[in-house]
Amino acid sequence: MDNPFFKNHGPFKIEDLLKDLKLNDIKNSITDRVHDIKDLQTADKNHLTFFHSKKYHLQASNTKASYCLTQKNLANYLPKSCKPILVDNVLLSLSQITSKFYPDAINDDFDNSVRKIEELNFESKIQYGHNVLIGDNVKIGKNCLIGHNTIIEKNVNIGSNCSIGSNIILRNTIIGDNVAILDGCVIGKKGFGFFPNKQKNLRYPHIGIVIIGDNSEIGCGATIDRGSMSNTIIGKNTFLDNQIHIAHNNKIGDNCIIAGQVGFAGSSSLGNNVMIGGQAGISGHLKIGNNVQIGGGSGVIKDIPDNRKVMGYPSKDIRQFLKDNK
Amino acid sequence: MDNPFFKNHGPFKIEDLLKDLKLNDIKNSITDRVHDIKDLQTADKNHLTFFHSKKYHLQASNTKASYCLTQKNLANYLPKSCKPILVDNVLLSLSQITSKFYPDAINDDFDNSVRKIEELNFESKIQYGHNVLIGDNVKIGKNCLIGHNTIIEKNVNIGSNCSIGSNIILRNTIIGDNVAILDGCVIGKKGFGFFPNKQKNLRYPHIGIVIIGDNSEIGCGATIDRGSMSNTIIGKNTFLDNQIHIAHNNKIGDNCIIAGQVGFAGSSSLGNNVMIGGQAGISGHLKIGNNVQIGGGSGVIKDIPDNRKVMGYPSKDIRQFLKDNK
Amino acid sequence: MDNPFFKNHGPFKIEDLLKDLKLNDIKNSITDRVHDIKDLQTADKNHLTFFHSKKYHLQASNTKASYCLTQKNLANYLPKSCKPILVDNVLLSLSQITSKFYPDAINDDFDNSVRKIEELNFESKIQYGHNVLIGDNVKIGKNCLIGHNTIIEKNVNIGSNCSIGSNIILRNTIIGDNVAILDGCVIGKKGFGFFPNKQKNLRYPHIGIVIIGDNSEIGCGATIDRGSMSNTIIGKNTFLDNQIHIAHNNKIGDNCIIAGQVGFAGSSSLGNNVMIGGQAGISGHLKIGNNVQIGGGSGVIKDIPDNRKVMGYPSKDIRQFLKDNK
Repeated sequence: MDNPFFKNHGPFKIEDLLKDLKLNDIKNSITDRVHDIKDLQTADKNHLTFFHSKKYHLQASNTKASYCLTQKNLANYLPKSCKPILVDNVLLSLSQITSKFYPDAINDDFDNSVRKIEELNFESKIQYGHNVLIGDNVKIGKNCLIGHNTIIEKNVNIGSNCSIGSNIILRNTIIGDNVAILDGCVIGKKGFGFFPNKQKNLRYPHIGIVIIGDNSEIGCGATIDRGSMSNTIIGKNTFLDNQIHIAHNNKIGDNCIIAGQVGFAGSSSLGNNVMIGGQAGISGHLKIGNNVQIGGGSGVIKDIPDNRKVMGYPSKDIRQFLKDNK
Repeated sequence: MDNPFFKNHGPFKIEDLLKDLKLNDIKNSITDRVHDIKDLQTADKNHLTFFHSKKYHLQASNTKASYCLTQKNLANYLPKSCKPILVDNVLLSLSQITSKFYPDAINDDFDNSVRKIEELNFESKIQYGHNVLIGDNVKIGKNCLIGHNTIIEKNVNIGSNCSIGSNIILRNTIIGDNVAILDGCVIGKKGFGFFPNKQKNLRYPHIGIVIIGDNSEIGCGATIDRGSMSNTIIGKNTFLDNQIHIAHNNKIGDNCIIAGQVGFAGSSSLGNNVMIGGQAGISGHLKIGNNVQIGGGSGVIKDIPDNRKVMGYPSKDIRQFLKDNK
Repeated sequence: MDNPFFKNHGPFKIEDLLKDLKLNDIKNSITDRVHDIKDLQTADKNHLTFFHSKKYHLQASNTKASYCLTQKNLANYLPKSCKPILVDNVLLSLSQITSKFYPDAINDDFDNSVRKIEELNFESKIQYGHNVLIGDNVKIGKNCLIGHNTIIEKNVNIGSNCSIGSNIILRNTIIGDNVAILDGCVIGKKGFGFFPNKQKNLRYPHIGIVIIGDNSEIGCGATIDRGSMSNTIIGKNTFLDNQIHIAHNNKIGDNCIIAGQVGFAGSSSLGNNVMIGGQAGISGHLKIGNNVQIGGGSGVIKDIPDNRKVMGYPSKDIRQFLKDNK
């Protein structure tokens, strides 16, 4: 799938991509072109991919990419059809090359493409408040409501019958039908991902988007960041209370209920029918199963299988938690 | 007391109310009219009430309502003057019937009744900033200040000498005198209450309001939701720091001091002179006494009697907490 | 250093200052004038200072101030050059006198000095969005971007190449170069500091400001309060994620990384290169060293020396925390 919102500035000759990495030595003088940068599984032969941790060796051995950014001790996992490009820091190089393909995805300055909604042709099918601003490449379905002072920056698709509140900022987001977004949310900005570096951290591009499923509700003041290489996803009929923070790359299932002030650190996945009590925190890179219930205030730092009820910091079986704290 | 803000669309014939619940069988073919739906204690003979848990059997046996939504095993607690209407799920039926009486209380779309404040007659007695919007049925007392981009949607009464900041959204709220509401608050939206239902949760109406007492201060970015059947109340001279979330139906006393990022899950009551440290969380349906002190980061999951000092998750006596964690 | 933003209404005759405190008895009938009120260390002979806790006796014995608000049991620590003015409650008297010098610092009402940016002369050197408002005494460097609906109230200096997002409120703040402030932040309002008092708490002036160093980034929806007697400081190249609350007087070092929903209670200092996981809370008046790592969800209630890794509530050595919770 092509990126729905961020313009791909490729294809590039590989040797040109490597110049900035100061890797343009003889071995890497490759005049082949690559059309995009993708992860191991979704890449095809026109693509460059990346492989930075042994954890992904199975995916690596099956990749269809023709070239792969990797490091010496991992190169052997790649199939013969995929030529390794050895770098010191795979993620750093990935970031630099992704910036070449998608320079617009690193910049999250305010959108100066926006115009007053009155200057556009939405009047016949939606209702809107005062001071609404709309950016380039915005689609809004029938019977939607857009509240006062709301800014829909570029790259937003909204389905039908949605109720978008006031003082909201949206960008790089696809919203289904019958969705309610409550006042004051900021959805679709880049995630909190960068390479720490003394004096000046190095930002990396976030080419993922936010996807919100049909019938969902996002409470007041939520911040939902778009993904870096993949998308941030809220399933269908999932309800979020106020002041929730969902960092980049999280995938939240259908029919979930998440209470106020819950936070997700990034890149975790949540099954369907999950309930989370207020102020709970979910660490990064976890897999939470279906039908899980997480008590208020919990700190989840491990995967949770289906159908479990947990509570505590760190979270454990809820009966154990209540017993330990009698 | 009549509902101050939400229009009551009753009276209704009981048999008409029951049609939607698919309960219009012979037994329930009642042509009597009821004028409102109220809880067991406040209902009078013109009202329909509801009784869903044995916990409330005393109130039930004394209700003055003529009709009561309830279930088979509870009907016997009602006095003879109150006829039971048996349903499978009392709260669900309550929600559906309340929606008939108060259809405006289920809809929290942006208020398109608002007008620019310059078009109204506030100039002589208050000062206001740029882009201020005011809805129907808004009263503002003398010497108030209303900051930039603030939206006072319909159904708001503000006392005298209040300082309302910028980027604020108010609705369905009564504010006393000398109150400060700081920038970015959202006050009076419906609570996070609904019936979970696969594919499409069922919202229920919130006919309560938010009441904020004299001399109080609400910090930046607070979210205070209005009540469902009762009101959300902040007492007098109670100060809230930034980023606090107060869910529906909470009652907070006078002279309380609540630090940043504290969250209330809903339907709890707090006495007077209560102090709560930053990031503490208060579970739902609790009773916290007077002069209680709750340490920062605590998770309160049980009632707390007057004059106690607690800390921890779950919270316990603060000396015990400090001793346990030496 | 003179206060950069708040106008000093002094000098005052000391006897006039003491009138409000009802301390204008014969002993205090002092016609000398003082030009400012400062802490023990920064005061010079034209200044009044204050000394309320034995903890500061060394600073007291070396102060250059000519007069000092203090209490009986502390007066002897002062040098002969500094005359004690005895009061019952040093901090309360300090507050009242500071209000005389800096009456503008107690009032945090919306700034009605703001004008639409189009009416000012910023066009040639910066880019800005719709509905931007700018107050008195605002300086903005070259190549800055100011997003939609952002309000820069009075007393703000912004360096060059900064990206200020949308729906932001700034006041009483100095921002370095290359700083990104993301959507919805409120920076520079007064802190949550006051004297609790039944029926009507007594606010005190906040004459400190917020200072944000070069290359830093402040995430969406942050609230950063200005200091009371000192400043709130964010170092250089320090990145804050979304929904962070930084109360008054905190000093945060350089190259720190602070994840989402972290809260600081006030008056703590953080060294350089500190990393803090999501939802952690830092109590007031703590000293956190350099290179410290604080796990997500931690509650820090004690000082932390350099180079430690901690986690837990209350926080302890992270290995111990993980071992205790196996």
